[in-house]
Amino acid sequence: MRSPQSHRNGDAPSPQPRIQTPHFQSTIAVQKLRRFNTLILVFRVAAFCFSLAASIFMITNSRGSNSPHWYNFDAFRFVVAANAIVAVYSLFEMVASVWEISRGTTVLPEILQVWFDFGHDQVFAYLLLSAGSTGTELARTLRGRETCTANDGFCLQSEIAIALGFAGFLFLGLSSLLSGFRVVCFVIKGSRFHL
Amino acid sequence: MRSPQSHRNGDAPSPQPRIQTPHFQSTIAVQKLRRFNTLILVFRVAAFCFSLAASIFMITNSRGSNSPHWYNFDAFRFVVAANAIVAVYSLFEMVASVWEISRGTTVLPEILQVWFDFGHDQVFAYLLLSAGSTGTELARTLRGRETCTANDGFCLQSEIAIALGFAGFLFLGLSSLLSGFRVVCFVIKGSRFHL
Repeated sequence: MRSPQSHRNGDAPSPQPRIQTPHFQSTIAVQKLRRFNTLILVFRVAAFCFSLAASIFMITNSRGSNSPHWYNFDAFRFVVAANAIVAVYSLFEMVASVWEISRGTTVLPEILQVWFDFGHDQVFAYLLLSAGSTGTELARTLRGRETCTANDGFCLQSEIAIALGFAGFLFLGLSSLLSGFRVVCFVIKGSRFHL
Repeated sequence: MRSPQSHRNGDAPSPQPRIQTPHFQSTIAVQKLRRFNTLILVFRVAAFCFSLAASIFMITNSRGSNSPHWYNFDAFRFVVAANAIVAVYSLFEMVASVWEISRGTTVLPEILQVWFDFGHDQVFAYLLLSAGSTGTELARTLRGRETCTANDGFCLQSEIAIALGFAGFLFLGLSSLLSGFRVVCFVIKGSRFHL
């Protein structure tokens, strides 16, 4: 981490190294913050992809008029709703992350942004896990009934959608850890810069 | 917060206030840490009570040999297991909190303790929510079947047990926020003292 910075700041030997030290340190902090934000962005993209895929897999799970539909089951509707909400939220957060990485400022005022991110990450992670668990229990119940023996494809596709939702939850949980870290940095230091 | 401290430290007017300032500040920090730990302890006690009650309510849910038993349903077994695990964990954490409040040191080495608390709080909160959601879905499914029409008491008691589990989850989630705060204090400042 130190060496690329040294190269970047060290194009010419400086006669006054002590005066440049604060700028040097703040540049490192900005670089680290950018890496941190890039990591959050990666998690956001993954959460978006998985939750969107989960919604689409569940919504497209209709095989003719004789087959059962996802909207006939409350738990599957919950899975679709939770994943769709998380997909929309992750899309917004992706835009916010790209904005922050490219411009160096947050979309909302800083204090609002860190609390908004952390609060929503926590709540939506719990929401997604709850939907996944509920969907899993229904899928397991259906496996023992004639619904699945007559329409195996319907049950299989439901299970895949639920599994994709769990993957989305995993990445949202990781984002939640990082955004929680930013909140506490902000509370303690008055800035989301953690160095 | 400032006034009781002033009274306590201000029995006699001090001729050298500047020398006493560090001790004064560290006393305030210790007092605040103690209040913070007391709050965690309250959440731990609540989580323990609710999760223990949930387990007991579910385990005692057997009404003769003709009635269904909780162990016949996977989801209810999951509810019992998750709540029992959280009850045992909360009991340990209660002891650790009381130890910390009374002696001023953590049971495990400090770095281990803060990470242990936070990691387990997070995982067990998700576990409890997952168990609660799964149990809720099964309870809803059973409501539409003859199990509940023939044995309404069984279904009602199951639902109460699941609701108690959700209350336990709520307090465990709150503990998780506080222990997360302690982890980040430790990461940033090298101490669980947040002031």
